[in-house]
This record gives sequence, C-alpha cells and structure tokens, in this order.
Amino acid sequence: MRVLAKDVKNYVGKEIVVMGWIHRIRELGGVTFIVLRDRSGQTQLVYHEKTEFNLESVVKVTGLVLANEKAPGGAELNVSATEILGAAEPDLPFSVNQDTEKTSLEVILDNRQLSLRNPKLRSIFTIKSAISQFFSEYLRSQDFTEVKTTKLVSTGAEGGTGLFEVEYFENKVYLAQSPQLYKQTMVASGMERIFEVAQAYRAEKHDTPRHLNEYVSLDVEMAFIDSEQELMVLEREILKRIFAGITQYHQEILTLWGATVPSSAQVDAFPVIAHEEAKNIISEKLGHRVFEINPEGERVICDWSMEKFGCDGVFINEFPRKKRPFYAYPLGLKTMSFDLIFRGLEITTGGRRINDYQMMKDTLPKFGLTEEGVGQWYIDNFKYGCPPHGGFAIGLERLTQKILGLTNVKEASLFPRDRKRIYP
Amino acid sequence: MRVLAKDVKNYVGKEIVVMGWIHRIRELGGVTFIVLRDRSGQTQLVYHEKTEFNLESVVKVTGLVLANEKAPGGAELNVSATEILGAAEPDLPFSVNQDTEKTSLEVILDNRQLSLRNPKLRSIFTIKSAISQFFSEYLRSQDFTEVKTTKLVSTGAEGGTGLFEVEYFENKVYLAQSPQLYKQTMVASGMERIFEVAQAYRAEKHDTPRHLNEYVSLDVEMAFIDSEQELMVLEREILKRIFAGITQYHQEILTLWGATVPSSAQVDAFPVIAHEEAKNIISEKLGHRVFEINPEGERVICDWSMEKFGCDGVFINEFPRKKRPFYAYPLGLKTMSFDLIFRGLEITTGGRRINDYQMMKDTLPKFGLTEEGVGQWYIDNFKYGCPPHGGFAIGLERLTQKILGLTNVKEASLFPRDRKRIYP
Repeated sequence: MRVLAKDVKNYVGKEIVVMGWIHRIRELGGVTFIVLRDRSGQTQLVYHEKTEFNLESVVKVTGLVLANEKAPGGAELNVSATEILGAAEPDLPFSVNQDTEKTSLEVILDNRQLSLRNPKLRSIFTIKSAISQFFSEYLRSQDFTEVKTTKLVSTGAEGGTGLFEVEYFENKVYLAQSPQLYKQTMVASGMERIFEVAQAYRAEKHDTPRHLNEYVSLDVEMAFIDSEQELMVLEREILKRIFAGITQYHQEILTLWGATVPSSAQVDAFPVIAHEEAKNIISEKLGHRVFEINPEGERVICDWSMEKFGCDGVFINEFPRKKRPFYAYPLGLKTMSFDLIFRGLEITTGGRRINDYQMMKDTLPKFGLTEEGVGQWYIDNFKYGCPPHGGFAIGLERLTQKILGLTNVKEASLFPRDRKRIYP
Repeated sequence: MRVLAKDVKNYVGKEIVVMGWIHRIRELGGVTFIVLRDRSGQTQLVYHEKTEFNLESVVKVTGLVLANEKAPGGAELNVSATEILGAAEPDLPFSVNQDTEKTSLEVILDNRQLSLRNPKLRSIFTIKSAISQFFSEYLRSQDFTEVKTTKLVSTGAEGGTGLFEVEYFENKVYLAQSPQLYKQTMVASGMERIFEVAQAYRAEKHDTPRHLNEYVSLDVEMAFIDSEQELMVLEREILKRIFAGITQYHQEILTLWGATVPSSAQVDAFPVIAHEEAKNIISEKLGHRVFEINPEGERVICDWSMEKFGCDGVFINEFPRKKRPFYAYPLGLKTMSFDLIFRGLEITTGGRRINDYQMMKDTLPKFGLTEEGVGQWYIDNFKYGCPPHGGFAIGLERLTQKILGLTNVKEASLFPRDRKRIYP
C-alpha cells in the first residue's frame, strides 16, 4: 500500500512505500537527502550513498520511517529499495523546484507542462477546482440544475463582435461568447434555476493582464425574481460558500500565497452603489471627472470600499441602458443590472432580463436588432410565456486570480489562449 | 412566500402563493380547472368562472388550499387572485402538454425551446445533471482535482481526422476532440488524479442515433496504476455511485420513463472479456465470423452478458494495438486498453497510457507520427519523468440515453449539433 507524503509521519518505525517525483537532491558527507513530491506534499528520503537520479524522475521507494524534526513533516524514510517508474532526462529546461517569483510569465507559460510541476504554481489550480466545487455544491443545494449548452452558435449574444468563426461542414458557426440566450431558454423551459460551468470565447485582440480569449464562465440564471437585488443576494451567498470552503480546506495554499479571503461579514458588507454614484465617487477620488468606469476606476472604487466599509468588493448597479446588451431589463434610462468589482477587478456581470414579449419587440429595433437576427427560437421564449428572471456570470480565472493575488489572469488558466499563444 | 407545486398538499386550509406555467385548462360546468406546472411538479388551480388564459402563460396565483383526492398531489388551490407574469400568445407551435411518444425527433428538436417545457423531455436533463453531479462528487471524494483544459488545440489527439477548424486571429486552430494530451499533462504535473467535464468535438459526417458532433465528455485520468484493471475498478465505483444517486433522488423520473438502473451487484458482475474472445462470442451468436465489434456486435455481447451474468454491461479489454491510438500502452500486439459496452452501446473508452520516454519515441514512427507533430510539450511529459497512468472517458449523453432508454443520443443533448443542425 502506497503512503502519501503528508501521511508519512504517521508511520514512524514502520516500513512503507511512497511514490512521487524527485523534487530536490542534496548530498552531505556520503549521505543523499532527496525530497520526494507527490500530490499531497513532500517527504524526505535518505540514502546512505551517492545516488544517480535526475530531478523529476518518478520513483517508487520502500523504506523505514524515522522521526526527524528537521525533515519536512517531522519524519523521513531510510530507503531500502528504489524502483524508477518514469526516468527523467537530465537537461530539465525549467527549474521545477525553484521559487518562480522572478520567472517571467512568458517563460512559465512557454514551459507550461513543466511549470505546472512547481507546487506553488500547481496550487492555483487546486483553488480553481475548489471554487468550481463550492459554486456547484451551493447551487445544487438551492435546487439549481446543471446544464451544458452548445458552444457552437449562429449568432453572438453580445452583439456580433468578437466572435471566433468555425468551419462547420457546409456552414459557418461561431464559438459562444456566453451561454446567455441558452440559459434564459432553460429558465423559460421550466427548469427555473440553472447553472453552467463551461468555456466561453472572446475574439478580442487586446492582450491585458485581465483578459483571456478562452475562459471558464460560472453562469447562473434563475426565475421569479423582481429585480437584480435577489441576484446580488444569491451571489453573496455563493461567494461566502466559496470563501468559507477555501479557508476550511485550503488554508495552506492561502498561506503559501500570502493570501486571505473576505469573511462572510465582509461579503455582506460589500456596498451596492448605483453606476452614476460610483462614477461620482471615482471622479472625486481621482480629482477629475470620469465618464465610464475603466480598470483604474475599478481599483479606485474598491479602495474606497475598503476605507469606508472595510471590505474589498463593490456591487455597482443601475447601469445605463446604452452600456448593457439588449436583453437587460430597463428601468427608465437605466437597467436592472449589476457588476461586482472585487479587489479592483470586475468579476461578475449580471442583471434581470427582459421577459415580456412586447417589451422585447419594442427593444430590439432600439439596438438595431431583429427577431430573426437574434434567433426566432430565442424570441419564442418570451412569446410563449416567460417568468421574470435574471442571472449573472463569474469569471472563474478572474476570481482565482483575485483570491490568490496573481498579477495576470493568465496565471489562472492551465493553457491560456491569447492572440499569439496557441501552444501548448 | 412562494410555495412549490410539490408542497401544496402541506398547506391545506391555508392561503398560499404559487407560481408557474399554465400547463392544462379544462372547463366543466362554469368551473375552470387549471394545471399549473413549476420546476417541482404540478398542482391544480380552481376558478369558479371561465378564464381567458393561454396555455404556457406564467402566472402568480393566490388561493386557499383545499384537500381533493382527485387533484394531482391530493390538494388544489381555490384561487382568489391571479397575476400574469409572462403572457403567452395563443398560437403555440408545439403542444407542450401532450405525450411526445409519437412526435418525431425532428419536430422535437426544431422546437427545442418549447419541447423542453414538456416535463418528461425536461426530465432527461435532470438525469444528465445528476450524472455529472455524482460523477464529480465521487471523484472529489477520492482526491481527484477538477481541471478545465483548452478546447482550442493545434493538433488532434486521435490522429488529425475529424477536426473542426477555427479561425483564430492570424492562426488556424482546431476544436479539441478530447482533452487526452492535456489530461495526461495534468497527471504528469503531479496532480496525479484529475477529472474534467467539458464539451468535445468530432467533425464526423455520419448522422446516426449514437453520434453527436458536440458532446459532453466525463474524463478521468490517474497516476500510479499498473494496468487498465484499476481503471475498470474505478469506473465500476463511479457507475455504482451514479446509479445509486439516481435511484435515491430521481426514482420518479426512472418510473416516468419505465427505466431501471443496474444494481451495484450487477455493476460488479459486468464481465471483463478480451477483445479477441469478445469477437468469438459475437461470431458464435451471430452465426458468422466478425472481424471487428460494430454496433450490432455491441448489442449482441450485452445480450450475451445479460443471459450469462444477469447484467447489461461488458468490459472489453486487450484491444489490438492497431485499433487504438498511439498513446495506448502496449501489451505485445495488444494494449492495456478497454471499452465499456452498456446496454448495447459503447459508453467508455480508456486504458493505460505510455509513460516511458523511450517507449514513446519507439512508438511514434509506428503510427507515422513525430515528436513535433504531436507536440514537443506533450513529449516533455515523458522526457522529464511521468508516472504510470491511465484514464477513460464516459460520454455523458450516451450514458443518459442508456439509463432512460432513449432511442437517439440527440434526445440527451439540449441543443444537439449535427451536420445540418446548427439551430437553435
């Protein structure tokens, strides 16, 4: 039976088998100390001889566990037998066991298959997995059904720009920018409450620390709401569940990154500021008038929230109609919509959607759209009875980035895609 | 506070609010009986007058709950107030409340936005969501990490045929046929145990009841296995968890479809038959020699398993090398690979993968491949230390199809894509 590195300390005085990667080799007066890495952590192997392993070779090791306060985990293996399960060549092009703080993102991503072996870089994806887990678990507990909608669409939900074209047999289709029209259809179908965790695609040419051309969208849509208020309540509950889960199960990763997550009280304290007021606050802070909330504004309003309310999130609602897609539910010249800015970055866009057929028919021409253009099937949702509803989407990589304090959102994507990067 | 249809019976003698879709209208001697549908089920509304609702309108109804043995759920609402939340036009192009048994699949899919409102058709996606849930929950309980890998790839994992091309800025990329190379990379990175639930794409022109051009793949990959045996053990455990979960939480849907799922004992009884032997069994059953296991053979071997072992699944292993991709771990002229045939349909392909660098280098030319061609980054996994590993993928729509006894796999896709169908 294999013992995981984290459990070796429980076997002092016993002979056990461990398996993993050779993470570090140190020779000292005829004794070789090897740090073995597995999915659970690291443990020390002691050989009373010189060894000829290469770093990153995968081995199966039998040995007697001895207590040693100085070893990681307080115990080490006095090795009696070693089997090489996967030999590594000696010319490692990326130094897995080094601190990557000063390694450029380009080098990390060019060597992704090896940089992921670095425990700290790998831990990003443990957090990402945990976010997805707690998001799904919470929503299931609230009677939400998980859906998987097609990513091959005839038109774009956000207006037709920024779409990747796919050669689809005799047709051309596009990669979905969001599941928007489909998730509304699912709600109208009577599922009422749905969520989806899936890739979304934006053919935007800019290369910034906050953009990915392919990202994972945590999408939520629910029926029978009056306004965006219920959606913000739901998002607070989801975030509280995610933050509590990460604190409970992955505190060691937060510590590794010097990171903390907001407490439930802090999430409850995120203020809700109308878009117009948010611009005023940002203008005042910056000392000049701003006409939209750009990345600088997002940072400023979070700083303001931290000063004033002791929390690093701000909901902004009541966006003007012209800043939102056609399906946003109007409130005069504004909409029942919101963004969540967390730690200086927009991580969520959402809102109530139009559900009334006549309102939809009146709205389309204002956006230069037709029923045919957005899809008659979509219009049918409203023509044949649709409950008041709304939803939102959380960018999974952005939330991961902001939880751990990563500089660039690409760090939170296993194999990020940008204008130039299509490899590995 | 809204009460769900399924809970109305608990409020006899009380005034409550329900919300949902008008599913059925029946007038009888000046009294109108309306069946209201919501996500939880159906309840009866009683109006002491003629009403002017259209089917599928969404309403909010206040009324006094009265016990009535003849009403669905044993209670009904004596309505005092009705508010229309989403009016439906009267010209419903698809009859939501009718039995769809005799409706053609074309009509169902052409009217997907409305056919999904049919409770029986919608229930397919409750089962699909549940499969995904229990799959993920079981694997998380076994220390698997969820990953999301890119769907935009430079080359195909299965050999370069059947790829959809994407215009990606100045480049051409392809939609991933499977996360194969990436999931192996994740295992080699030290995650050891990973799973992914995501879309996969096959540009296959044929239109059969068992193929989708876009489907959801439940992917698993794990390190430190000796052969495909451990993978089949794992898949049995996953299936047992899925079947038990569906029985526990969704028995009413199984009943609706006249469906049953295998017991844990039956899953344990799925025989493991070598490919060569499986061909012999099929040949004998059919009365003529077969040289490969085609759809007919898959049905025949499941019938054989039912007769002989009382279970409707068969693991087939030891596929010949020429029938498997280059990464399959060789065993002489065979491979450490397997399929799972369930109720006459292949729902899983898996196996141990090559993890040794030299073996990989020797293998590539035999398949007409080069290190550059499959990707140097992928080869790096083996060059720099990779544990013995393997995995498998379950087709989510196929498993859903076979659990409920659906005729066509497209019925288990919300918005199926085939050669001609790109809408809705």
